[in-house]
Amino acid sequence: MAKRGVLIVLSGPSGVGKGTVRKALFDQPGNDFQYSISMTTRQPREGEVNGKDYFFVTKEEFEHEIQTGGMLEYAKYVDNYYGTPLKYVNETLESGKDVFLEIEVNGAMQVRSRTSDGVFIFLTPPDIMELKHRLIGRGTESMDVIDERIKTAFDEIRMMQNYDYAVVNDEVSNAVERIKEIIRTEHLRVNRVMPDYLEMLGEANQ
Amino acid sequence: MAKRGVLIVLSGPSGVGKGTVRKALFDQPGNDFQYSISMTTRQPREGEVNGKDYFFVTKEEFEHEIQTGGMLEYAKYVDNYYGTPLKYVNETLESGKDVFLEIEVNGAMQVRSRTSDGVFIFLTPPDIMELKHRLIGRGTESMDVIDERIKTAFDEIRMMQNYDYAVVNDEVSNAVERIKEIIRTEHLRVNRVMPDYLEMLGEANQ
Repeated sequence: MAKRGVLIVLSGPSGVGKGTVRKALFDQPGNDFQYSISMTTRQPREGEVNGKDYFFVTKEEFEHEIQTGGMLEYAKYVDNYYGTPLKYVNETLESGKDVFLEIEVNGAMQVRSRTSDGVFIFLTPPDIMELKHRLIGRGTESMDVIDERIKTAFDEIRMMQNYDYAVVNDEVSNAVERIKEIIRTEHLRVNRVMPDYLEMLGEANQ
Repeated sequence: MAKRGVLIVLSGPSGVGKGTVRKALFDQPGNDFQYSISMTTRQPREGEVNGKDYFFVTKEEFEHEIQTGGMLEYAKYVDNYYGTPLKYVNETLESGKDVFLEIEVNGAMQVRSRTSDGVFIFLTPPDIMELKHRLIGRGTESMDVIDERIKTAFDEIRMMQNYDYAVVNDEVSNAVERIKEIIRTEHLRVNRVMPDYLEMLGEANQ
């Protein structure tokens, strides 16, 4: 039986750059983990492939998954559902492969409540003022929206205490390196390797 | 107030190469931790310096430290005491510097029972047979002693479950790299950095 993979959850406040860090991490060679494909009820955009970019399903199919406990986490934005199918994640972990989720804070807390051995990484802005500059820098939001975002970020940073690790996104390449080290280090945790050693002891004793 | 340093404890079975790994780690540039100096009642050997190699004390002084709770861990070999003075370790941690202990398994368990936030690393042989070869390779022990050592190693590997991380000593340079990653990663743990963030939130909110 393959050793169970590690579930890695990357989250953090809106605007902190989770997506950019995740893409940079996955663009590197030699990664040995699987990116979890989300399920959604929104329409595929030009070039998006079902089962690669998303699992595209109907509203009825998605709600059926929710009702039968099939979603590890989910959220509704406007009229569309987005979420992580439990079955896909579990099958990948059981095959011995790590699974990487990059999700919003609310989703991460849903995952935390449903798993016992996940590794939860909170991506943080270098400081709160830096977050403000980034949001203003986008130029797509009004000051009211920005103030609201900052209030949310305060709340979210307080939520950091529900995570295992805090990684500062000062530079994308630094954040990526820290996340890779966290993943390698988590594989050395005694509760993950103990089964292998007990097996080895048994064999050596014969 | 400086953030409290991390107490790092490296241990493992006799003959696994803890001393070699520790020396290789400390020979590297850029380490930001302090090696804990042991206290002993044995006589200084040629060239050994008090306060650098060991704190050399009398039997009466050592036993006074034990009785007044001054030792983080200690053991008696033949007629001499060896141990780690609590005061030195605590002062170094309070100053914000990490402290590195390389000690026997029994000592590590004493430390575990007296601290709440130490990082416990268990150095393991690549496999049990490899440990046997290493002991025979030394050529200084009889087969009876070797068999006894292996029995002890079995017991000690079962003790691995009291540690946080297991690092395989397949190559000294690999083991050193893994330990460095563990230390860097432990500094990202939310329970260690949360105080900094709460402070930052307070300042940003003014």
